[in-house]
Amino acid sequence: MIMSRIEARRDEDSAAAASPLTDRLLAVLPAEAVLTDPDVTASYANDMASFCPAGAPAVVVLPRTVEEVRHVMRTATELRVPVVPQGARTGLSGGANATEGCIALSLTKMDRVLEISPVDRIAVVEPGVVNAVLSRAVGEHGLYYPPDPSSWETCTIGGNIGTASGGLCCVKYGVTAEYVLGLDVVLADGRLMSTGRRTAKGVAGYDLTRLFVGSEGSLGVVVRAVLALRPKPPRQLVLAAEFPSATAACDAICRIMAGGHVPSLLELMDRTTVKAVNDLAHMGLPETTEALLLAAFDTPDPAADLAAVGALCEAAGATQVVPAEDATESEMLLQARRLALTALEAVKGTTMIDDVCVPRSRLGEMLDGVERIAAKYELTIGVCAHAGDGNTHPTVCFDARDPDESRRARESFDEIMALGLELGGTITGEHGVGVLKKEWLAREIGPVGVEMQRAVKQVFDPLGILNPGKLF
Amino acid sequence: MIMSRIEARRDEDSAAAASPLTDRLLAVLPAEAVLTDPDVTASYANDMASFCPAGAPAVVVLPRTVEEVRHVMRTATELRVPVVPQGARTGLSGGANATEGCIALSLTKMDRVLEISPVDRIAVVEPGVVNAVLSRAVGEHGLYYPPDPSSWETCTIGGNIGTASGGLCCVKYGVTAEYVLGLDVVLADGRLMSTGRRTAKGVAGYDLTRLFVGSEGSLGVVVRAVLALRPKPPRQLVLAAEFPSATAACDAICRIMAGGHVPSLLELMDRTTVKAVNDLAHMGLPETTEALLLAAFDTPDPAADLAAVGALCEAAGATQVVPAEDATESEMLLQARRLALTALEAVKGTTMIDDVCVPRSRLGEMLDGVERIAAKYELTIGVCAHAGDGNTHPTVCFDARDPDESRRARESFDEIMALGLELGGTITGEHGVGVLKKEWLAREIGPVGVEMQRAVKQVFDPLGILNPGKLF
Repeated sequence: MIMSRIEARRDEDSAAAASPLTDRLLAVLPAEAVLTDPDVTASYANDMASFCPAGAPAVVVLPRTVEEVRHVMRTATELRVPVVPQGARTGLSGGANATEGCIALSLTKMDRVLEISPVDRIAVVEPGVVNAVLSRAVGEHGLYYPPDPSSWETCTIGGNIGTASGGLCCVKYGVTAEYVLGLDVVLADGRLMSTGRRTAKGVAGYDLTRLFVGSEGSLGVVVRAVLALRPKPPRQLVLAAEFPSATAACDAICRIMAGGHVPSLLELMDRTTVKAVNDLAHMGLPETTEALLLAAFDTPDPAADLAAVGALCEAAGATQVVPAEDATESEMLLQARRLALTALEAVKGTTMIDDVCVPRSRLGEMLDGVERIAAKYELTIGVCAHAGDGNTHPTVCFDARDPDESRRARESFDEIMALGLELGGTITGEHGVGVLKKEWLAREIGPVGVEMQRAVKQVFDPLGILNPGKLF
Repeated sequence: MIMSRIEARRDEDSAAAASPLTDRLLAVLPAEAVLTDPDVTASYANDMASFCPAGAPAVVVLPRTVEEVRHVMRTATELRVPVVPQGARTGLSGGANATEGCIALSLTKMDRVLEISPVDRIAVVEPGVVNAVLSRAVGEHGLYYPPDPSSWETCTIGGNIGTASGGLCCVKYGVTAEYVLGLDVVLADGRLMSTGRRTAKGVAGYDLTRLFVGSEGSLGVVVRAVLALRPKPPRQLVLAAEFPSATAACDAICRIMAGGHVPSLLELMDRTTVKAVNDLAHMGLPETTEALLLAAFDTPDPAADLAAVGALCEAAGATQVVPAEDATESEMLLQARRLALTALEAVKGTTMIDDVCVPRSRLGEMLDGVERIAAKYELTIGVCAHAGDGNTHPTVCFDARDPDESRRARESFDEIMALGLELGGTITGEHGVGVLKKEWLAREIGPVGVEMQRAVKQVFDPLGILNPGKLF
């Protein structure tokens, strides 16, 4: 839709582009890759954390080649214009929100899968490849790219790298960072740097690859990535267990993990979330439950593993344990989980999604605390969690048109992060800092940490043009 | 033995310690933690790459607390004295070799396992904990710390972190970097910084944890680490397969990995290595083989997995496939593999152990090339390899008393690295750069990479006192 509008206005844009910035950009980029119509550029101002402040981009660029990205960065350096790298803008922390007058550098047109090697178990991709497209492409070779953020059908690998995304798979397979072997990065001044490797191992020099993963576009622009793949596991089988309290569900999680089990998924939805999902999609989930636990195994004998885990759930007080009998039933349960955030958004129109990760031994205290905070602020806060990782998403539901409720929402959101830190956790397990949590980063990593991180930023971006105002 | 000598000379040392440096150190460190007897300090000059240049330490310090380490670093900063952090000095690249007049900062006395949590699947340790000690301690809780460098019975976790060590397990379980969640680091000026987390996930700010892993003591001194653990897998069962050529063995490796198998170990020994092991330890390995492949599985049904892999070996031309029938036979085969480097050292008295990692699809070309290089330089070069990772250890055997042979050894060693780079590999899969490969680092990462890495070093160590002369 946007694209047809862009085409219609291209001539108009070209005429309007008589600024030094667009002139310089158009010296190398084709006209269709340089958008200046304010209606169009405004649509690139936000990621999904739409309540975070965002400026208006001066221009949106949609390069298709590394050389075009280099030209954008050289231009930005010459003219001292801020650059905000963007993927599909599905992020939840405002990390891709525009800075006033910036170049919004959308990598979505660099969307080629360049190579898939079953022997080396790697894929080489451009940053704009959509996660699901890559997953399906490698699947055809019997391979598996695990990171699966909820937005996997639309989010890009470049965005996943920028935010070090997680997902449902992490309890067994880890996060995006574990799958990035090497990068080509365009630096702030337009120079091209390669990091890492395409081999299974490698320790030549500092691990700059990992430094870039999760750096939210503030150190350079990823234009190519070598990703590690795994063999495709057997299809997972899911079990659902109902608990009379969140504490009992958390007890079950501790028993499962201490018992040496390796589930491919271990998710929790609280009563509020279950009800929201039912209200939205009439899934027929059990609303009598205080906490619904989903566990899955993709092992050679998942039914046996589910039986063992089911017994642990019962020992922890589960009132009902229902293993899915086949892939269809499993998929229905996962679908309910994937709807959680959308369903909670429907409750009051707007949500603030927290992303606190605590040691899983402290998960029960975390859930208790969130309930206390919800009562204190008289708010609905639903919790869904990648429970096996201790990664909770307490989701504050509020009416953004109500100033008092909005204020209470923000206060409760902050209090949840404070609780997470108290419990030995982190303010962000997988969504990143962006704009939303930048005041909190310092509280988590301390003054020495902030000083060293800022100094690292200075090394890669001495002019401060790369995604300014994010993280710090 | 060293310790008894130290004790005997303690009084003498204290008397001899009347320099500004030792005076300042002794203001906080106890006398037994500050060694100045040249006979003793000389014994801390080298790691296992003894042919790399090393200076004489001015003093060896053996702190037991974080505060003592901080005092050492503050002193070093004040007096502009270089500091070389050391673990068990089992490294193979000279990364722990002393700089002339340095403080050799041995972390071996900080050897406590502070915490093991089966629910959170983490261990918190001091840097001087020996890898095997940790492995056994977590094993008692049903847990597993995978990284297993060959020196695991003596090397320390701090050293493993400094060099980002690998081992035999990596083909399934990855390298040390995958298991480091958080660090406490004493910076060059004595400030204490915490990085990372104790949670399963976390993306708050830049990943400085990973930046420190593999930084060879050049960015700070690790004084505490939070390590990720896994549930202990079933005991692995090993298969040995003989091949009529290295090419056929590499073909088998490609078939195994492309076939979606996940062995817990996939190792290769060439004919030279097999013969050396037999000569040393009379293991009765088949000397008729051109390449011996060891594969193992720690799955629920390892015999079935070994049968499948055995069939792939036969399809690739294996002349004999012998699965171990039990743990004892498996252990014998692994023992042979672990003896490889020692055995090759016995061939001519000295070795230079290369550590080139190539994409596993290029492994055959790598082995062919090494054979060509050995012939060209008229040298014995045995290859053992973590073949599943493409990580080869071509080991040049030479007589260090023969200048011409020593020169040819170094030239062949370099030519092997050049070959690795040509094949899309890295000069170091797991041993690090240290002194040995610092001229090669620039060839691998290029001028922009070197410039950015040097700038990162400058951030953390503006005075250049931390392990100077290594890496770059």
